Amino acid sequence: MDRLPLNPHRIKKTGIKMTLSNSSNVDFLGYVKSTGETSTIQIKEKYQPALLGLEKFSHAIILYWFHLRDNDKHRKVLQVTPPRHKGASLTGVFGCRSPSRPNPIGHTIVRIESIEEGCLKVRGLDALTGSPIIDIKPYLIHDCKRDAYFPEYFKD
Amino acid sequence: MDRLPLNPHRIKKTGIKMTLSNSSNVDFLGYVKSTGETSTIQIKEKYQPALLGLEKFSHAIILYWFHLRDNDKHRKVLQVTPPRHKGASLTGVFGCRSPSRPNPIGHTIVRIESIEEGCLKVRGLDALTGSPIIDIKPYLIHDCKRDAYFPEYFKD
Repeated sequence: MDRLPLNPHRIKKTGIKMTLSNSSNVDFLGYVKSTGETSTIQIKEKYQPALLGLEKFSHAIILYWFHLRDNDKHRKVLQVTPPRHKGASLTGVFGCRSPSRPNPIGHTIVRIESIEEGCLKVRGLDALTGSPIIDIKPYLIHDCKRDAYFPEYFKD
Repeated sequence: MDRLPLNPHRIKKTGIKMTLSNSSNVDFLGYVKSTGETSTIQIKEKYQPALLGLEKFSHAIILYWFHLRDNDKHRKVLQVTPPRHKGASLTGVFGCRSPSRPNPIGHTIVRIESIEEGCLKVRGLDALTGSPIIDIKPYLIHDCKRDAYFPEYFKD
């Protein structure tokens, strides 16, 4: 969208900022209100204007927070053996969808059923009730990679 | 993967946590080292074990931080007119990919070219040099939604 132009001044500033900063803060914009075949997400009133136009898309990317894993123990996990995939061996958390990971961010693509008064009804949400929402993005045509391949044990 | 079981005790705890907590911290795990047709991402040494097994996938989801928009002004933006899409009207930031948004999280699906010593070479990364990396996830078969639809002005 409206990215900043790539110019040397900005790149220089970027470099400086990277040296100084190792983290930032993430705000909770809403939460998962109920789960099931259809799940509901409630967006906080102050953020509801951000939903304008999302109803024109069939699918959305939901980024949420694995809040029950938001502690030192789980954020230090770097490798796991994915329990739901037979045949999987020890895998880095960047190579699977483990909720224990350095930043406990969950990612699910959902089908949008309805959006009304800051409440989204969606299908396919793989999150616990109470999970904070940290971002919502529309699912675009280039998000569907038809030529993607996967290890055998991730095909189910 | 290894989600916690849904039981009343946990849901109750979740509810309490939601009331108390409005934000958390996000750590920068690496950064975009160079951009172009092929881009490079450097992961910090301490997080490099998390990459194990990612090389078995063709594509990865890169979550990065729009660090130049990480300020009060840009994080308060809730609606924009997407400048790159002719015909688009005023749209909520959850209905487009604007880098100005409450949590400045960027999301791109890239093709993995190589992974060596914590350095990923990827294709299709839509991020500025210096952008912090906040998560990497493998692209799975159910991330490709073949029945998705979009507004006309988002089809290019």
